[in-house]
Amino acid sequence: MSDLDKVLAHIDADLDHALDRLFQTIRLKSISTDPAYAAETRACAEWHAADLQSIGFDASVRDTPGHPVVLAKHHQTAGTRILFYGHYDVQPADPLELWDGDAFEPVMITHDDGTKEIRARGAADDKGQLMTFVEACRAWKAITGSLPVPVTILLEGEEESGGANLPGFLESAKAELQADVAMICDTNMWDKETPAITTSLRGLCAEEIFVHASDRDLHSGFYGSAAANPNHILARVIADLRDAEGRITVPGFYDGVPEPSQALLDGWGKLGFSEAAFLGEVGLSVPAGERGRSVLEQTWSRPTCEVNGMTGGYTGDGFKTVIPAVASAKISFRLVFDQDPHKIRAAFRAFVRERIPADCRVEFTEFGSGRAVTFEVTAPAFQNTQKALSDEWGKEAAFVGGGGSIPVTTMIKEKLGMDVVMAGFGLSDDRIHSPNEKYSLTSFHKGIRSWARVLAAI
Amino acid sequence: MSDLDKVLAHIDADLDHALDRLFQTIRLKSISTDPAYAAETRACAEWHAADLQSIGFDASVRDTPGHPVVLAKHHQTAGTRILFYGHYDVQPADPLELWDGDAFEPVMITHDDGTKEIRARGAADDKGQLMTFVEACRAWKAITGSLPVPVTILLEGEEESGGANLPGFLESAKAELQADVAMICDTNMWDKETPAITTSLRGLCAEEIFVHASDRDLHSGFYGSAAANPNHILARVIADLRDAEGRITVPGFYDGVPEPSQALLDGWGKLGFSEAAFLGEVGLSVPAGERGRSVLEQTWSRPTCEVNGMTGGYTGDGFKTVIPAVASAKISFRLVFDQDPHKIRAAFRAFVRERIPADCRVEFTEFGSGRAVTFEVTAPAFQNTQKALSDEWGKEAAFVGGGGSIPVTTMIKEKLGMDVVMAGFGLSDDRIHSPNEKYSLTSFHKGIRSWARVLAAI
Repeated sequence: MSDLDKVLAHIDADLDHALDRLFQTIRLKSISTDPAYAAETRACAEWHAADLQSIGFDASVRDTPGHPVVLAKHHQTAGTRILFYGHYDVQPADPLELWDGDAFEPVMITHDDGTKEIRARGAADDKGQLMTFVEACRAWKAITGSLPVPVTILLEGEEESGGANLPGFLESAKAELQADVAMICDTNMWDKETPAITTSLRGLCAEEIFVHASDRDLHSGFYGSAAANPNHILARVIADLRDAEGRITVPGFYDGVPEPSQALLDGWGKLGFSEAAFLGEVGLSVPAGERGRSVLEQTWSRPTCEVNGMTGGYTGDGFKTVIPAVASAKISFRLVFDQDPHKIRAAFRAFVRERIPADCRVEFTEFGSGRAVTFEVTAPAFQNTQKALSDEWGKEAAFVGGGGSIPVTTMIKEKLGMDVVMAGFGLSDDRIHSPNEKYSLTSFHKGIRSWARVLAAI
Repeated sequence: MSDLDKVLAHIDADLDHALDRLFQTIRLKSISTDPAYAAETRACAEWHAADLQSIGFDASVRDTPGHPVVLAKHHQTAGTRILFYGHYDVQPADPLELWDGDAFEPVMITHDDGTKEIRARGAADDKGQLMTFVEACRAWKAITGSLPVPVTILLEGEEESGGANLPGFLESAKAELQADVAMICDTNMWDKETPAITTSLRGLCAEEIFVHASDRDLHSGFYGSAAANPNHILARVIADLRDAEGRITVPGFYDGVPEPSQALLDGWGKLGFSEAAFLGEVGLSVPAGERGRSVLEQTWSRPTCEVNGMTGGYTGDGFKTVIPAVASAKISFRLVFDQDPHKIRAAFRAFVRERIPADCRVEFTEFGSGRAVTFEVTAPAFQNTQKALSDEWGKEAAFVGGGGSIPVTTMIKEKLGMDVVMAGFGLSDDRIHSPNEKYSLTSFHKGIRSWARVLAAI
């Protein structure tokens, strides 16, 4: 029996303990975007540092101007050096009333077909995913007393809230973070039987805008029509952001966006992706966005703009005939290829300002920027990871595009000069960022086994 | 010394007691739109019934399917019978953090120039205003043991929340409500020196719309562009409601809206109204709404459409890259002349439905309808009231238009067949429906004296 076989057998035997550890970190409400949870977010960082120390990592909680980072190194001399990145913070759980139970009390749900899933905020994104890697390390240590290769683990606490302090940390800890390749577990499988390595990600440019009109809320009977209504101004801005063909109208927005190559489109075509099934899973049937482009093309190779939140005036029960003093929206752009988030932010702000009446004003708050990123899959780390994943799942791992943004990927590539292998075990129905987030027990179990294989193969 | 002079002297001497009574009703949080305050709303009705009993009215709290009505009759045989209407419910006080103190703990503020004002929710709208009439009755009773004319007082508890149950009550209590003329104290002075009688009001048609897209909140990275975003759909609907000239685009919206007569425009022109001052008072300077129409024309004789509230997606602190399942807006139309609120509601719903993608849906909730109303000022009740107000204030009372909607005015005219004299002592800077609502002590004091004169003159 090889060391790897022993490690895999240990993982199978230790699964209940691994779940127990995952549940411990899930119960810590590390909601980074809400200042009310700052102490609990730190407590979660401390939990992870202690957990990594317990398996021989030199781990510590590092302060930043925001939430802390966990940095852990397993000292070892030989082999390909891996820098693993995960994030221990989670999204807010609201609307709480749409959860079937307490969002932060994980439960194991068993379905009629015998499949099981863990339901909780962070079950997948990213606590369940990051713990697959940590548990793989734990198993190697338990069986061999060591790891097959040198490993550094970096756990961020602000991934869900803009990640403003990570660039500074990467800069200041550059020497400690040196490695040959980075790995991230924060992405999905292609489907529940087919593992996937994500080789491109969209960038992000997120803004909150506040449109201010009168200096107080007004009675719409006395002031209706006469006074500027910021709800109308904001709605006009949002409506103007797309033309009738679904294209974003911010000047220069499509600069640096080539048409996807025929080879890429052909590769995606072979994946057997069903738009009807993808949309049907969430109760929809009509592809939105740009006319004449497929869903995969739109989410993997086209930029987009989404209003993630908007509010203005009276939104409680009943009716209040008010013209509000202010209305606001949270707007995010997903970027591809060479789009420059700073240029787009400036163009967007100018676009908004042009639509603000002379006696009103607009304020902007910046929430994170990141360029899109693409990797060449011919590098050994990608090939070896693909083989390890294919061995575990019995199906060839797919190289896929990603619609989301993991700004750290770009930062690691740019600041630390490494390729980033993004392999994750999430599924498209995991409801991350939504009520009843879940992580399949198979994702967790075979995810741990997958990383055990990758550590041996790299 | 005439009875009237004695009554006026009594009012001056009793002012502190009158304020004390006003403060008692203000402290009762009769927020009719919020079900959490149902018990306190009823307690407020009971307070008013007891207060009116204490000055010899046969007063009782009458149940409706919603908040109760207070009905009080002072039995008397001779003279012009008056039906006085007021409302004891108030608007919500949020955003609470913008108040300089507790919204429901009235305080008397003294300014540097010696003027005083009462600050509280309901200080003006409508508790302060309705108590001017009640205190005038109290003074007449104290001096003469009776009232100059028969008076019936009707206090509604749902004026700020759609008033759904008032039509039914008026119908069922029709016999008890019979009178020669109705009077309402829920409007403003022309300016702080010039009393006014409002002779027209805009109608209202209020709707809440809910745009539903996916069956759950989605991650905008995975679903951006591919999935319909209800924030975008709602913004498009709102933006489409007005054309580039500021006209409402709902088909048939302007049916029954004549141009105002030159005589009316000339009369308004003589009021010396300053658009710059009116807008400047609330921090604005550019008239919104229809191009080429004056502010008075817009607020007194033109219909409008205002989005009083809108919300969709994540609106808390920080950022959440979500595509929400639902977005909603509260939209009200102010109507003039012969616009039919039911026809406009139907046309608006069709307008919205046309803009909803095939895989999304929209729900509507109706909040109140009322036609606009106009009175002929040559009737004796208007002339006598004008004279009484002019005597009290030393300036001729103006006949003005009103931009707001007091649906009960239309109902009283249509169901009970009476003219309605709307005389009130509010000022345009009273911040009704806003934080730091206030009522000038002069409005309260001279308002009581004004009604005492009206009761004698009518």
